Amino acid sequence: MSQIRAVKIEVINTGTELLLGNTLNTHGAWFGRELFKLGLRISRQTTVPDGDAIRDSLQETLSRADAVIVTGGLGPTSDDLTREITAEVLGLELITDEAALRSLGEFFALRGKPMVDANLKQALCPVGADILPNPNGTAPGIYVPPRLNGRSNCAVFLLPGPPRELYPMYHAEVVPRLRALAGVENLHEALVLKFTGIGESDFHQGIDARLAEVPDLEYGYCAHIGEVDLRLIGDAAALEAGRKIALERFGNYLISDDESSMEETVVRLLKERGMTFATAESCTGGLIASRITNVPGASEVFTHGFVTYANEAKTGLLGVSPSDIEIHGAVSEVVARAMAEGALQKSGTGIAVSVTGIAGPGGGSEEKPVGTAWIAVAMRGGPTEAFRVFHPRNRKDFKLAVSQAALEAVRRRLKEV
Amino acid sequence: MSQIRAVKIEVINTGTELLLGNTLNTHGAWFGRELFKLGLRISRQTTVPDGDAIRDSLQETLSRADAVIVTGGLGPTSDDLTREITAEVLGLELITDEAALRSLGEFFALRGKPMVDANLKQALCPVGADILPNPNGTAPGIYVPPRLNGRSNCAVFLLPGPPRELYPMYHAEVVPRLRALAGVENLHEALVLKFTGIGESDFHQGIDARLAEVPDLEYGYCAHIGEVDLRLIGDAAALEAGRKIALERFGNYLISDDESSMEETVVRLLKERGMTFATAESCTGGLIASRITNVPGASEVFTHGFVTYANEAKTGLLGVSPSDIEIHGAVSEVVARAMAEGALQKSGTGIAVSVTGIAGPGGGSEEKPVGTAWIAVAMRGGPTEAFRVFHPRNRKDFKLAVSQAALEAVRRRLKEV
Repeated sequence: MSQIRAVKIEVINTGTELLLGNTLNTHGAWFGRELFKLGLRISRQTTVPDGDAIRDSLQETLSRADAVIVTGGLGPTSDDLTREITAEVLGLELITDEAALRSLGEFFALRGKPMVDANLKQALCPVGADILPNPNGTAPGIYVPPRLNGRSNCAVFLLPGPPRELYPMYHAEVVPRLRALAGVENLHEALVLKFTGIGESDFHQGIDARLAEVPDLEYGYCAHIGEVDLRLIGDAAALEAGRKIALERFGNYLISDDESSMEETVVRLLKERGMTFATAESCTGGLIASRITNVPGASEVFTHGFVTYANEAKTGLLGVSPSDIEIHGAVSEVVARAMAEGALQKSGTGIAVSVTGIAGPGGGSEEKPVGTAWIAVAMRGGPTEAFRVFHPRNRKDFKLAVSQAALEAVRRRLKEV
Repeated sequence: MSQIRAVKIEVINTGTELLLGNTLNTHGAWFGRELFKLGLRISRQTTVPDGDAIRDSLQETLSRADAVIVTGGLGPTSDDLTREITAEVLGLELITDEAALRSLGEFFALRGKPMVDANLKQALCPVGADILPNPNGTAPGIYVPPRLNGRSNCAVFLLPGPPRELYPMYHAEVVPRLRALAGVENLHEALVLKFTGIGESDFHQGIDARLAEVPDLEYGYCAHIGEVDLRLIGDAAALEAGRKIALERFGNYLISDDESSMEETVVRLLKERGMTFATAESCTGGLIASRITNVPGASEVFTHGFVTYANEAKTGLLGVSPSDIEIHGAVSEVVARAMAEGALQKSGTGIAVSVTGIAGPGGGSEEKPVGTAWIAVAMRGGPTEAFRVFHPRNRKDFKLAVSQAALEAVRRRLKEV
């Protein structure tokens, strides 16, 4: 997007636990995605331990970047030195911010806890910098604008480490300031289209060239197991043009255009149609039911889940014929159909999905190698549909890929209703 | 551990996708854990985009660190410049390594694919450096020892990015060289004890002081939902002393001392006792069954999972009395017991667990707030045991915490058999 100034942004994450491997650093990826929505990029991300180690890293960054976002080290303990070292590096005095002190006092009063002396330093702020309110914790953030910052032209954001404090503060306080710094117009928005059943390379071959021709449109892909997300960034006209190109070619594979997950989409469609849902799972072992019940309000539409891991469970709970299992095998079209129809009948729901497959590592054969699964969808008053998939992956990824294919089959069936 | 030299190790991860947030950078945490096992620490981790950006970062690191591990950028495309830039920064000439070229040729021949010219650069190596074989991909790693490296005293490891290539190469090629650099004796080993039902602060208060007194023992904690891992590092005597201190105080809460997960431990105990297992889940919605079926070989012991989300499912599938649900509520001790006993009876297994609770966000009351769950364990020929837990968390974390408590109840019951 030509109207956005090229802004070099660096992220510094402080936290010994991030370097010991106890905690996965998810901030880096999160900032990457959020900044991408503004058409911005991270030029470098650095992780340093708690304490003094941030000094060198910050000093180097100030000489390179237009903006730096530092997370962590704003707490009350002796290891929390981000505020103090930043002021020192920038040559700014720290003074107590009365509003921040008051709001700290209110935070503790509300929780009926005493504020200890150690917390007092959390109200310290470099002279002239902005305090960024933290409604979700004790550590306010700090913004030092470039004009204040005599030793460089770099804007400095100090933000708390815990995601539930960091994320709201980023949206409320950092985004508007970054937009101003980078000249990002409010007109620019992001759109995420989630697809399944096709791979990233299909998009490259199918629509990359056409997307590249849309003026002021930025786009990127993000591939997961059983899903590819297309991210579009631009003004309303550019987004609409990009969406049209993607849907013309791949509309049939669209899960959602509002960042809803597959399971959220299925639950929404069920609610809209006033239908109830049941699952009959062998190889996915309850994962489809668990994904559905991750969605708030799933209890309105999801009633019964049958995890029929053993053959006796398939016959006893779902009424699958033992001779069908013997003749065709537990992983077969016949058994998948019988499982879905059994689940529909036993649960009294409107629609049911079944899966039966070979997760491995053992149990495969030449005809039915590890990774093979049969999926069936049964619906009240309609035919049962079945199909075979093949996902030769490790056990967990196999379960995820098969559960995605099963939910996609339900989604497509519901779209026809 | 006093006999290990203090070695400053930095990690540089290259990859534009890591900074766009499309891919979570799991290398940092992985290296942190692996190096910790050697008694080593990462002093800084940096992520830079593909291409030329690694030059500055590498140059700075060479002046600070004793060893640097660089991942990514060893592929055949024009963006893969790690090898070339490293040689340039170190002032070393790149020459074709004949053994590497031969092994590249074999890699392609084995797969019946032609080797293209672009792959030729993957056999290039700085003069005198070591090629690190890559049995799992086309990109060999490179090790430049400090003595070769005229411009600094830093050892340089260049490793491929994909985990399935990186991890084996790290263990086979990097660990022995790091041990030599740091003077880590082979005698030093790591031990991970996994606990549940107690928090990190219990360990701090309960055993920190005693662990600190054990000569040459390093220790650290890692807290997850429903689990705390204690990592011990040292020689055999130190590990045994540390283990004894931990188990004396918290042995009752131990899940495993061999890095086995809760579900792996439960599946192992079931196999050892020749018992089969069933689940009856309401609020966890299939998560317990899904965790159990993540374990290879689960089909030997796990037969039936009932996901009875609706009350009719509890009555219809498990024989819970409708009047009990009406009088006591679906989230109650009476219903939890009836669900576990119903699952045991309907499945014919040796042991069954049930959970019924309020995941939220809706559905809570003053008496039974969101986060409440009842768990029951029924066993053939023994009494049914039930207890209440309270985990007021978001929906997914609630499900995980309750599933952990349920599996822990099964684990304890199995230990008594």
